[in-house]
Amino acid sequence: MGGNSIGDQFIVTSFGESHGRCIGSILDGCPAGLPLKESDIQPELDLRKPGQSTITTQRKEEDKVEILSGIFNGYTTNAPICMVIWNQDSDSRPYEKIKTIPRPGHSDYPAMVKYGGYADYRGSGRFSGRLTASFVMAGAISKKLLKYVLGIETIAYTTEIGEISIGNISFENAKKYRYTNEVRCPDLPTAEKMKDSIMNARKSGNSLGGIVECVSIGLPVGLGEPIFSSLESDLSKALFSIPAVKAVEFGSGFEGTKKTGYENNDLFIKEEGKVITLTNNCGGILGGLSNGMPLTIRIGFKPAASIAKTQKTLDLSSNSLVDLQVPGRHDPCVVPRAPPIVEGIVSIVLSDHAIKAGFIPKVLKGY
Amino acid sequence: MGGNSIGDQFIVTSFGESHGRCIGSILDGCPAGLPLKESDIQPELDLRKPGQSTITTQRKEEDKVEILSGIFNGYTTNAPICMVIWNQDSDSRPYEKIKTIPRPGHSDYPAMVKYGGYADYRGSGRFSGRLTASFVMAGAISKKLLKYVLGIETIAYTTEIGEISIGNISFENAKKYRYTNEVRCPDLPTAEKMKDSIMNARKSGNSLGGIVECVSIGLPVGLGEPIFSSLESDLSKALFSIPAVKAVEFGSGFEGTKKTGYENNDLFIKEEGKVITLTNNCGGILGGLSNGMPLTIRIGFKPAASIAKTQKTLDLSSNSLVDLQVPGRHDPCVVPRAPPIVEGIVSIVLSDHAIKAGFIPKVLKGY
Amino acid sequence: MGGNSIGDQFIVTSFGESHGRCIGSILDGCPAGLPLKESDIQPELDLRKPGQSTITTQRKEEDKVEILSGIFNGYTTNAPICMVIWNQDSDSRPYEKIKTIPRPGHSDYPAMVKYGGYADYRGSGRFSGRLTASFVMAGAISKKLLKYVLGIETIAYTTEIGEISIGNISFENAKKYRYTNEVRCPDLPTAEKMKDSIMNARKSGNSLGGIVECVSIGLPVGLGEPIFSSLESDLSKALFSIPAVKAVEFGSGFEGTKKTGYENNDLFIKEEGKVITLTNNCGGILGGLSNGMPLTIRIGFKPAASIAKTQKTLDLSSNSLVDLQVPGRHDPCVVPRAPPIVEGIVSIVLSDHAIKAGFIPKVLKGY
Amino acid sequence: MGGNSIGDQFIVTSFGESHGRCIGSILDGCPAGLPLKESDIQPELDLRKPGQSTITTQRKEEDKVEILSGIFNGYTTNAPICMVIWNQDSDSRPYEKIKTIPRPGHSDYPAMVKYGGYADYRGSGRFSGRLTASFVMAGAISKKLLKYVLGIETIAYTTEIGEISIGNISFENAKKYRYTNEVRCPDLPTAEKMKDSIMNARKSGNSLGGIVECVSIGLPVGLGEPIFSSLESDLSKALFSIPAVKAVEFGSGFEGTKKTGYENNDLFIKEEGKVITLTNNCGGILGGLSNGMPLTIRIGFKPAASIAKTQKTLDLSSNSLVDLQVPGRHDPCVVPRAPPIVEGIVSIVLSDHAIKAGFIPKVLKGY
Repeated sequence: MGGNSIGDQFIVTSFGESHGRCIGSILDGCPAGLPLKESDIQPELDLRKPGQSTITTQRKEEDKVEILSGIFNGYTTNAPICMVIWNQDSDSRPYEKIKTIPRPGHSDYPAMVKYGGYADYRGSGRFSGRLTASFVMAGAISKKLLKYVLGIETIAYTTEIGEISIGNISFENAKKYRYTNEVRCPDLPTAEKMKDSIMNARKSGNSLGGIVECVSIGLPVGLGEPIFSSLESDLSKALFSIPAVKAVEFGSGFEGTKKTGYENNDLFIKEEGKVITLTNNCGGILGGLSNGMPLTIRIGFKPAASIAKTQKTLDLSSNSLVDLQVPGRHDPCVVPRAPPIVEGIVSIVLSDHAIKAGFIPKVLKGY
Repeated sequence: MGGNSIGDQFIVTSFGESHGRCIGSILDGCPAGLPLKESDIQPELDLRKPGQSTITTQRKEEDKVEILSGIFNGYTTNAPICMVIWNQDSDSRPYEKIKTIPRPGHSDYPAMVKYGGYADYRGSGRFSGRLTASFVMAGAISKKLLKYVLGIETIAYTTEIGEISIGNISFENAKKYRYTNEVRCPDLPTAEKMKDSIMNARKSGNSLGGIVECVSIGLPVGLGEPIFSSLESDLSKALFSIPAVKAVEFGSGFEGTKKTGYENNDLFIKEEGKVITLTNNCGGILGGLSNGMPLTIRIGFKPAASIAKTQKTLDLSSNSLVDLQVPGRHDPCVVPRAPPIVEGIVSIVLSDHAIKAGFIPKVLKGY
Repeated sequence: MGGNSIGDQFIVTSFGESHGRCIGSILDGCPAGLPLKESDIQPELDLRKPGQSTITTQRKEEDKVEILSGIFNGYTTNAPICMVIWNQDSDSRPYEKIKTIPRPGHSDYPAMVKYGGYADYRGSGRFSGRLTASFVMAGAISKKLLKYVLGIETIAYTTEIGEISIGNISFENAKKYRYTNEVRCPDLPTAEKMKDSIMNARKSGNSLGGIVECVSIGLPVGLGEPIFSSLESDLSKALFSIPAVKAVEFGSGFEGTKKTGYENNDLFIKEEGKVITLTNNCGGILGGLSNGMPLTIRIGFKPAASIAKTQKTLDLSSNSLVDLQVPGRHDPCVVPRAPPIVEGIVSIVLSDHAIKAGFIPKVLKGY
Repeated sequence: MGGNSIGDQFIVTSFGESHGRCIGSILDGCPAGLPLKESDIQPELDLRKPGQSTITTQRKEEDKVEILSGIFNGYTTNAPICMVIWNQDSDSRPYEKIKTIPRPGHSDYPAMVKYGGYADYRGSGRFSGRLTASFVMAGAISKKLLKYVLGIETIAYTTEIGEISIGNISFENAKKYRYTNEVRCPDLPTAEKMKDSIMNARKSGNSLGGIVECVSIGLPVGLGEPIFSSLESDLSKALFSIPAVKAVEFGSGFEGTKKTGYENNDLFIKEEGKVITLTNNCGGILGGLSNGMPLTIRIGFKPAASIAKTQKTLDLSSNSLVDLQVPGRHDPCVVPRAPPIVEGIVSIVLSDHAIKAGFIPKVLKGY
């Protein structure tokens, strides 16, 4: 399987380029019998699409999904579901001018070398954040499948922008408030500060990074396969496929490395007939397997590499240092657009594992 | 491909159980023509093996590797290389007693549920840290291959144990001093403190976690495949396969999320005819591709779950809370044994990518 | 990888349904730098498309290919190449009437059971011969790649229709004459007889089968991977994916089983500095590897299952035997439309193996 | 996945060399809870092992299986099952003498070229028929699994040796008599003639080929996955991995291409509440899916390439034609040793598909 695909039994393949004809996604392995129409997918794309607010890129894309295959009489058939959104507002001219000038923090330089000049450099081509729309399309189906069959719910939300962070928040509140503001932060006063901070970064031609937290509830016990398909392994692989992600931790993560075993171990108890743990430092994963507690992940996004501020870089055609003002339209912070992407990609991985572990049948009957 | 295998073209399959007959590893896809004998592998296993010092488990295993296939006249043939080490000092009696009592922080509970009682629970079976010996065996070949063909070197070393950490250290010093002490920390005075701290944890029946840093130099530009086989994706997948790893970050990682784009971007310059960057906040990876700078990773290990201190847990046979003193012989901190595992597994991933990207041919001639 | 994809490093994924919106194909893993436009693909589709002559189905489809991704400035970029043809002349009404009446010789019955009623039954859905258009699209790129980089040429042609067969024919003549007639048989007088025979079958509401031969020249020595990716293994897997194929043989095949070893062995000699064999009973494959001689394959197609003649079958809704006249528009013999499909699919497999064995680089330069 | 592995969810990896330390097999993906011990596997190996009769090679190998992993308390655990047989009676000296002289009909020449001289040429190394022991080991587990969970039975037997063939035979008789004679032909008078014919070939320094038929009963409806994992696709891929196989056909196969659709179509009827077909020209497969009727396959084996009779061939060191008498100990006909191999490999593929299609759960309970 090539790098453009992910999953073993529930397989997503991404295609398309930022400034090509379309962004597309094929989902192969979806069980037959899931009711599905475009309106199940569109709302998720709408949450990610650009041009929605003052703190995102001004590229205007409708990002309207079309399903090309795999649905019959309103249900999935187990055949590959091909989905596309057509690019409408791409402007490739700025990229022509800098095609020999690698932007700092971008894939330009290694892509140029790797593909011997054949890579599509318009809008970063295959390396564009726009490709994450393909994760969202397949992710929307995954979310529906997990909810429909197993009652699993996954939410992601912004917890840090630059130096600004929120404290703990309950699943219910995070679910309720995360999409009520442009920053996708469920703590509304902090969301305001984050927004200001992003606006300031934009004004000064700079950018910010941040952290997204993701929580899934309702997982059965035993998702994950030893050794190399531990839940952490497959989730991190998927999450690091999102451009700008540079750090991933589960449960107490890096903080937990400073605790003792006695403090960090989560004790088993029984509550309402169910085995649970008193704390959840393991983030819902023990030995690479889900233990039935909420899955908790923190994902670190670097500050967006494209900034208006002048930077020095090399012009590879002349081998001289030049001043670069990155052209094009860009997000001053990618974090606010990340939650639907994270929710989608985590749902893709969980769907694959739920199928692998036998929790979702090939044909859905009686749900 | 099942969860017991990793890699696309350079594929490692792990087999064996902690208290079974052996721990084994098959490496499929190694190019023909690499000179290889058991003595290329043994030193790496020796660095990982238990019972070496006062701060590791007292289980005594020689961990002597035997190559069963894939070598002819002292060279690899491109056929699968099967390697085993035979288990010698396993004592499964303690595990019989607790087979219905899941240890906090361990895979016991989800494994029990997932496998309906058929999982090998002796010494954690497939979930044991002992399985990492299979990574080290294949990793040793990978390291040799990368060095032999591309001059790539990978080192890993302890930078934090609990609250104790070292500052920055050069590649050369880290390489030189990392294996001079039991903690595998290249800063010798700090290593002493770390050791004391682990000894204290052991004495109090507790355990510690910590952080391992890994650096690879000599990577060509362009390792990594978009989208889902970015270098971060595949490295994190492999690293999270090591039991106890709960956090992974590349370059400036979580710290970098607090910087601005202007601060975090690495500027391109040319030095001695080579394109490099002035800083390396990206950890040698841009757009998921190696950019020729050192690959830098930080890996967080939770404190060891097996502790002597009494903990409460559930006895699933009686559904009652019981006092548990985890039996068996255990590491009070797994970090000191982790560096050769990390070096191995990172080398496995880099080998796979170097082959995929065309930097290593199927037959090695003239190296 | 799911059943809708084939290949390890050069991967074709088929999507779409006979009466859905489109038939599509994604080719992932094509090296960067191959000049490619739609007009490289269209002629192959034209050779396969329906409605071309009196001996094929009368469904009218333009089968015009559109490339949606993976091409930039006229060259491949190594990104996935998504191609579609839009369905235009589907008429699903006949299929509604027989949706509980499985047609003899068709996938209807097992598909109905397997997918619990969710399978798209219109025009056989995913099981339609129309899906082979997706092989032809990806096959056309494969053919161009193999020719461009390695000089490999693959031709397929009809050698038997029912009881009528041709004798031996040279590669040059087969190449020259195979597409000069509707039956795709390079022996023109025999082609006439075959055509008459198909016309007679159609008139009597019946159908015919036949045999296609495929020859590839210019293969380097050493394509194929032991054990399970022998060239025969991967070619047969691909060929049996063509609906109606029920038999595949290489070189002397079944006939060769009646010879002695002394007769069947091909002796090595040297001619013009090249190691060749005097005969080619092995069909160009020894030990699963190409030996540099022409690859020769014979592929048996069963008579088309859809016939106008009344047949008895079960109505699963009433559990009674009924008279069925298969509705819809059908080929009285699929063999004449098979050669471009066979050429395509053999080229796909050879491309994958040529990449795997290192004969085609990731970036094409200087061809 | 490399060429040394087969299967998607039930994966067999073959390792070892003809004259190396061992022949091994790893089965990954076997459900937990199957009772298994070495004595379940040994009888199948015994049916294949060399030196059993006057018509097989005189190499003496005990072929005693050892299970190294994956079993606990007498049951499978879903962990990889590694099995080995140790080579005991290899004599590599003859191969040293001919290492630059490729034997006609063997992999020697392409392997030499492909691996640049690094291939293990002793006893044909990885290309030896001896490797099929790895299929038999994994096959024995597959057979037991299919019988245990689904009641599927697979038998294979010799139907043709050179020009001598048997007529139709019932499943029951074939099952009962196939292993009562050295030729593995269930028609005993014909078996005698076959044996004589093989003895005569051996005496004259020659060899014979033949045909093996394989029948599986008890398949559920719906095994097989469209498009590229049709049952025919995956079975043929596996069967062509057996050295010497050059032809495979299902049901009426090549013969069926001469029939009309009306003759070749199998009509559906209901018998004892079950949908069956009156005839079985499709060999139990429609549209690539099992239809519940017996799976029937015919497999053509070429005459063994190693013959005592002098043949001309090239000495690549001197580039001159030489006389070659193939040294070593060989089978004058490989067909009599093939039935357990065919039964095993067909069972492997059916197991993989039964798991994929959801007919076998991950944990076996209550069988």
